[in-house]
Amino acid sequence: MSVHPIEEIIHPRTIAVAGASDSGRGGGFVSPLLELGFKGAIYPVNPKYDTVSGFKAYARIRDIPGPVDYVISSIPATHILELIDDCVEKKVKGVHLFTARFSETGRKDAAELEREVLRRARAGNVRLIGPNCMGLYYPEERIAFNEGMPRETGTVGLASQSGQVVGEIVGFAGQRGVRFSKAFSYGNALDFNECDYLEYFTQDPKTDVILMYIEGARDGQRFAKALKEAAAVKPVVILKGGRGSAGTRATASHTASLAGSLKIWESTVRQAGAIYVTDIEELVDVAVSLNFAPPITGRNAAVAGGSGGSSVQAADQCEEAGLRVIPLPQDIRDELKAQGSPIWDWIGNPADFSIAMGDETIGTVLMRMMAQHPAFDLLIMFVHGPWRRTGREFDLDKHMESYNLSGVTRKPVIAVYADRPRSLDEKEAAWYQNISNQIEERLLAAGLPVYPNVGRAARAASRIVGYYERRPQ
Amino acid sequence: MSVHPIEEIIHPRTIAVAGASDSGRGGGFVSPLLELGFKGAIYPVNPKYDTVSGFKAYARIRDIPGPVDYVISSIPATHILELIDDCVEKKVKGVHLFTARFSETGRKDAAELEREVLRRARAGNVRLIGPNCMGLYYPEERIAFNEGMPRETGTVGLASQSGQVVGEIVGFAGQRGVRFSKAFSYGNALDFNECDYLEYFTQDPKTDVILMYIEGARDGQRFAKALKEAAAVKPVVILKGGRGSAGTRATASHTASLAGSLKIWESTVRQAGAIYVTDIEELVDVAVSLNFAPPITGRNAAVAGGSGGSSVQAADQCEEAGLRVIPLPQDIRDELKAQGSPIWDWIGNPADFSIAMGDETIGTVLMRMMAQHPAFDLLIMFVHGPWRRTGREFDLDKHMESYNLSGVTRKPVIAVYADRPRSLDEKEAAWYQNISNQIEERLLAAGLPVYPNVGRAARAASRIVGYYERRPQ
Repeated sequence: MSVHPIEEIIHPRTIAVAGASDSGRGGGFVSPLLELGFKGAIYPVNPKYDTVSGFKAYARIRDIPGPVDYVISSIPATHILELIDDCVEKKVKGVHLFTARFSETGRKDAAELEREVLRRARAGNVRLIGPNCMGLYYPEERIAFNEGMPRETGTVGLASQSGQVVGEIVGFAGQRGVRFSKAFSYGNALDFNECDYLEYFTQDPKTDVILMYIEGARDGQRFAKALKEAAAVKPVVILKGGRGSAGTRATASHTASLAGSLKIWESTVRQAGAIYVTDIEELVDVAVSLNFAPPITGRNAAVAGGSGGSSVQAADQCEEAGLRVIPLPQDIRDELKAQGSPIWDWIGNPADFSIAMGDETIGTVLMRMMAQHPAFDLLIMFVHGPWRRTGREFDLDKHMESYNLSGVTRKPVIAVYADRPRSLDEKEAAWYQNISNQIEERLLAAGLPVYPNVGRAARAASRIVGYYERRPQ
Repeated sequence: MSVHPIEEIIHPRTIAVAGASDSGRGGGFVSPLLELGFKGAIYPVNPKYDTVSGFKAYARIRDIPGPVDYVISSIPATHILELIDDCVEKKVKGVHLFTARFSETGRKDAAELEREVLRRARAGNVRLIGPNCMGLYYPEERIAFNEGMPRETGTVGLASQSGQVVGEIVGFAGQRGVRFSKAFSYGNALDFNECDYLEYFTQDPKTDVILMYIEGARDGQRFAKALKEAAAVKPVVILKGGRGSAGTRATASHTASLAGSLKIWESTVRQAGAIYVTDIEELVDVAVSLNFAPPITGRNAAVAGGSGGSSVQAADQCEEAGLRVIPLPQDIRDELKAQGSPIWDWIGNPADFSIAMGDETIGTVLMRMMAQHPAFDLLIMFVHGPWRRTGREFDLDKHMESYNLSGVTRKPVIAVYADRPRSLDEKEAAWYQNISNQIEERLLAAGLPVYPNVGRAARAASRIVGYYERRPQ
């Protein structure tokens, strides 16, 4: 298999940042490279300065001594053709154009300038990411475009027309333990487009899950084919921006995209066997279980550990999400009765542990039975924090032991550590927040997907079951 | 108008807590009364102790000298009849039965005991809240059932079969500035039921908005009538627990409710003109705008201040919620052009302020125009935090001034202060959290409903428009 053209440009030995300065957004592209520890040379390019971020600055790309593999451009559009010509002359492989104000303005001259950029780049063998985008995040190569992007690498790949969306997905999924192989913000998709990024991730051995935020596709047939091929080998999650009439207008002024008919989009995604989501929260929720849980291939859910009203609502939300909350199997009841449990006939699925007050072990015992029972395809496990602050120290090890199912089951286990209202007492609130953070860290360390409520957990699980149901065996 | 029977029992001069102790849940009912500062006498009742929480304890209710108006019972069900007899003898007006293990266990003898409790209470002229519930939260009377319930009173009334749900709604809505007139957790609804609480709130002059969490109704016709009468005079929001088959099983074991057909429920609620929601988050979201915004009576939304991908998604989510994100009116465009704005032809609705980089005033100018323009029924306003920490101190006053629309419009304005990923740098994360808290406090102090994303804001607004559309004029 030949090397994918995107792969050709994302391993630069040297990066030039055109328009770099010690203030403003241009400088902002140098500091994330420094923060992540990019190993090659960094060349700021700006005729106004002698140095930027402590590096010698050059007036033009052509003035840089030695080879330049990759250029980040944050100069104004008015000077962009000169920059492209310089890149051609320096045999630059790839250019990321943060530079904007092209076709997305809706203006004729700006669109014509954009076309000229593409013509010169193609003629000169320079490939483009963008314009009007944030570019590349590639932790293994120590390349980032925002400060604070995680240094660790992972197996989730992301391509998005919006840079803000990349920041949000990497950030929100990151808080929940997900790490990325690469992420691309690609804006107006002038050269490489959604199909290229999708095909790239499909063949990338370091990417197990593909996430995309797309405002419009240039070539619907090619995209449908690429999506089908991708979904056949790894889960693909698609968030489509510009679904209604106002959103369609907004995509035009954002990335000059033709949003296309929503119905065609939805059916294309589903027929290809990919997962269709409608907001970033849902996209991240699906990514979390794809990243951490074994494949969720059936809809029979065991739900354990809610209490009272939350158990009732857990049942409702699971069913409304498309899971089946089947009754507690009779053999589990019989076993509980044999063990002398006083609630063997009362407890059900969802298993409301609040009715077991006084019998602290019933929860753990029952949860393990549910996790092992063949009638269930997955277990949704409510994890609790301490009830409130008392004189005694909270024993986190002992507390977490009751949720430890390692070695008990190979089924998907999804943890719900529910948000609860902040205490009005600031000390108690801080104490609880600190313990909550520790509990979430323990759950992540155990490799569990964690959700703040059962509705979101159930909807994510159901989307994933849908993927495995549609995928050709 | 005669005094409502619920009103008769919720102004006690004295409260006895049966089963009180210095540890466990019984004691838990004394401490919230102390914390809120209940002004009457508190009598712990427990034959095992001489004192509880520093108060003299009595062996039985009948031993208490002087009148007892209200009793909270947390004794086991096995002793409940004796307690009821004592209450009759002491001429107690109201009893809250935290005591559980009645009909919700599904057992015949427990259900028979429950019926006997009701017979004796009725015969003795004692009214009951519960059993199997958390009872009354009434800040004006300094009565609460959990520690940390707000001391301030408000105009939202809440009745819920689940005590946990009351805690969550009071807590989550409380964090967003909502305060309550009264809240009832009423469990198995043995004496007062959902109709009584609803009728009570309908006639209560201190309640402007009614929230209910209901697992089942005993008398569907009476409930439909009460709901119609309530919704005709004030907004009513209904969350129905037990919507599917598993949820129905769960309501039976939680509060012994017959969940009823979901379709009948949904159509009953809608035909009555009440607002139907499907989870606590949505219920709280609707309550926040009902509490803070003037009536939202039309669907034409102005959406201002998003950027790039977030503007596209704001448009999608508003439209999917049932709002109309109409194009920017031509006279606003003309005015921007006359003022010399370089983006008069490019900016739209949603108004993406990120394209105005360099012109810091355009956002404020345009937002004010949108807020005043007759084509719009409401304004959804993105509020931002600082981009990141810099050497300069963040000027909160100046920052918030650009969002100040007081005196500019009487239209509903909904603020979206979007969650953003936590920084990996702990210092920066703490700094940002601190500023975020201050921004949210300022928005609350300005009387604005605040949401963490535009989808939730739009769905809440749309539910409220639906209420005013259906309400007879």
